[in-house]
Amino acid sequence: ELQGKLDALHPADIAYVLEALPLGDRLFVWDLVKAERDGDILLEVSDAVRESLIETMDPHELKAAAETLDADELADLAPDLPPEVMLDVFQSLDSEEREQLRAAMSFPEDSVGALMDFDMVTVREDVTLEVVLRYLRRFDELPDHTDKLFVIDREDHLKGILTLESLLINDPEMVVGEVMHKENVISFEPEDEADDAAQAFERYDLVSAPVVDAEKRVVGRLTVADVVDYIREESEHEILSHAGLREEEDIFASVWDSVRNRWAWLAINLVTAFIASRVIGAFEGSIEKLVALAALMPIVAGIGGNSGNQTITMIVRAIAMGQVEPSAMQRLMRKEMGVAVVNGLVWGGLLGLLSWALYGSASLGMVMTAAMTLNLLLASCAGVLIPMVRLRVGADPALGSSVLITALTDSGGFFIFLGLATLFLL
Amino acid sequence: ELQGKLDALHPADIAYVLEALPLGDRLFVWDLVKAERDGDILLEVSDAVRESLIETMDPHELKAAAETLDADELADLAPDLPPEVMLDVFQSLDSEEREQLRAAMSFPEDSVGALMDFDMVTVREDVTLEVVLRYLRRFDELPDHTDKLFVIDREDHLKGILTLESLLINDPEMVVGEVMHKENVISFEPEDEADDAAQAFERYDLVSAPVVDAEKRVVGRLTVADVVDYIREESEHEILSHAGLREEEDIFASVWDSVRNRWAWLAINLVTAFIASRVIGAFEGSIEKLVALAALMPIVAGIGGNSGNQTITMIVRAIAMGQVEPSAMQRLMRKEMGVAVVNGLVWGGLLGLLSWALYGSASLGMVMTAAMTLNLLLASCAGVLIPMVRLRVGADPALGSSVLITALTDSGGFFIFLGLATLFLL
Ligand SMILES: [Mg+2]
Ligand SMILES: [Mg+2]
Ligand SMILES: [Mg+2]
Ligand SMILES: [Mg+2]
Ligand SMILES: [Mg+2]
Ligand SMILES: [Mg+2]
Ligand SMILES: [Mg+2]
Ligand SMILES: [Mg+2]
Ligand SMILES: [Mg+2]
Ligand SMILES: [Mg+2]
Ligand SMILES: [Mg+2]
Ligand SMILES: [Mg+2]
Ligand SMILES: [Mg+2]
Repeated sequence: ELQGKLDALHPADIAYVLEALPLGDRLFVWDLVKAERDGDILLEVSDAVRESLIETMDPHELKAAAETLDADELADLAPDLPPEVMLDVFQSLDSEEREQLRAAMSFPEDSVGALMDFDMVTVREDVTLEVVLRYLRRFDELPDHTDKLFVIDREDHLKGILTLESLLINDPEMVVGEVMHKENVISFEPEDEADDAAQAFERYDLVSAPVVDAEKRVVGRLTVADVVDYIREESEHEILSHAGLREEEDIFASVWDSVRNRWAWLAINLVTAFIASRVIGAFEGSIEKLVALAALMPIVAGIGGNSGNQTITMIVRAIAMGQVEPSAMQRLMRKEMGVAVVNGLVWGGLLGLLSWALYGSASLGMVMTAAMTLNLLLASCAGVLIPMVRLRVGADPALGSSVLITALTDSGGFFIFLGLATLFLL
Repeated sequence: ELQGKLDALHPADIAYVLEALPLGDRLFVWDLVKAERDGDILLEVSDAVRESLIETMDPHELKAAAETLDADELADLAPDLPPEVMLDVFQSLDSEEREQLRAAMSFPEDSVGALMDFDMVTVREDVTLEVVLRYLRRFDELPDHTDKLFVIDREDHLKGILTLESLLINDPEMVVGEVMHKENVISFEPEDEADDAAQAFERYDLVSAPVVDAEKRVVGRLTVADVVDYIREESEHEILSHAGLREEEDIFASVWDSVRNRWAWLAINLVTAFIASRVIGAFEGSIEKLVALAALMPIVAGIGGNSGNQTITMIVRAIAMGQVEPSAMQRLMRKEMGVAVVNGLVWGGLLGLLSWALYGSASLGMVMTAAMTLNLLLASCAGVLIPMVRLRVGADPALGSSVLITALTDSGGFFIFLGLATLFLL
């Protein structure tokens, strides 16, 4: 009965069910799934869950699953398959598919080549639309997301684009060359960055686009479905790495897998926390004399971290959207420092008054206000500088930026506050 | 010359240029843009930049821009237009457009109704494909993203879906009713949540889908272009709110606009930091006797915050992906507590040894290890409980979760560490 229900489900729905099940139930359901659907489902599940499923399959099951897939899909699955299975599968392919598989696997993960497929319909420019219509009637189905046909010459060079729209609204007597788009045809090369292609799909609302080599020969096709998956994965990645998770986690993973996924950032956090602790240690004499400092110092550090995270998140986002030129650094810095001064005077002033009221010392209040303002200034400068400098040297502006800025505002905040207190209060 | 270049650009590209320019240059470029393109560009720019552009336009310019738009686009722009302009525009519409505009504006922001458009091509089920082909040839263009025609009866009830694929690969003598998809037609209602629709588009790789009312009458259409924009905005929103930014910021906004965008979370952060500070204040006597506590306490608080953020981010993500049932709470809690114990013993043990070495007190080291483990346990429980409880009561599991967990692990960490120290060391 459950089996019947599973058979009626779309592979993506089964993938979703599998992801939401604890390991035992998951493998039970996985066994009920018809073997010929295994390949499609493995493509849809998250990396972590895919691993857990593949672990339980024997080589001939894996080979059977892999053989149901297209070359581009196989390339996506390849890193998770045992090498001997891959070799077996490779040998079962015909020479065109082998070439496609080799091509798809040769491009780096975040390139257009890794996202493209090989399902395209091509036509010649000298035939009439009537001929194209008759040609299409010989198909049993069109590749998914076919919204345009690629017009090519004998050597596969891209001459233009025939949208299904032009095919349908124009007189069938017309010739493809008259009707096709020749100017402003958006195409990509396999080496292009997937990010740029995704941005183009979003901006120009594309459904599919040709992928061409350096000589403009059509080698593949990019579709909005794969672009949407890419966009989702990228934002997933950004959200998770913000919190220090290496990758999407199978929420039913073992304790040990979770520990491995998270340990790196915890370790970095401990190192920076230890440094901050040593900064405080250097002022133990001052704290002994005025113990109020110990209670107030986390406020100074905390507001710096929070405000610095706001700045750096905004700059990193703007860089990711391509809205920031390296030359804009000075202007952004001035603005962020302005924000810091306003916040420092308002919130720092308020906390200064509170400290005065609590501890009966006006000068302690003034040190509090000054330290908060200075730490906010430090946070704003670092929030602009860290991503902008990385942008200039060509590094990833986002990577671990939250950890870096918090480290700086914690140690910096303790140093500024305890230093000012030592100078002016003791 | 610049004007010539601008005229050649896609509205989305001009929007991108405008977003990357400081205010002065931005308004200069905006003046060069041909008036009839203003509407399309206003639709593409971010909310913050849109405001800055609309501020400089007078009512008749705005009215002219708005009149170039479709009803669904107008609905998107409406909240940013002065009411008198909207009234003028509304009066210039014909009765069908007025009805559409009213419909589009009546649905909440995150519903299908707010994303849908009204550009659809419909056909009857009793005609042949040949008739449909001739009908389409009378169009000057098809609505963007037309990959299927909606088959309806005289009362607009949705009877099925005729994909362009079926139209093209089948014999033109066949009748629409024989060729159309009747089973498993994916359609939405305007009241459906946009999140669910977006998930369906991703899972089933849709390009467009009909929107129907409770009586199955077709009222609109959803396209992948609008869904992609929605997905991008949602992840943008999640990333920004994590760092305590209310919304996407125009990076060239004035200091004052930025302060307004960020103040709420800074204020909350200050309140929680103040509470943590009062927890420390309660133990001032202990710190006075053993000043090392002041230096070590931020480590305990910091690792709890970091680890709690990892847990809560993972759970919130899994909930957003629909992978967590409320009933899974116990199991998740057990697992996260397992992770916490491992981390507590490993990292807490390490830091305990370091503290022993630094301060020459084995019992101080043991208090350190115990406090870190307990705070990690607190963080893991809260990291599961906060989003899961919110899920059960129907609230947004993500909102401000990072602030909440940090507040808890800061105050909790200080309390646990200073409390244990007071009990066992003094
Ligand atoms: Mg199976
Ligand atoms: Mg397939
Ligand atoms: Mg691929
Ligand atoms: Mg595909
Ligand atoms: Mg778009
Ligand atoms: Mg990636
Ligand atoms: Mg902190
Ligand atoms: Mg203008
Ligand atoms: Mg338009
Ligand atoms: Mg709308
Ligand atoms: Mg539209
Ligand atoms: Mg998909
Ligand atoms: Mg929203």
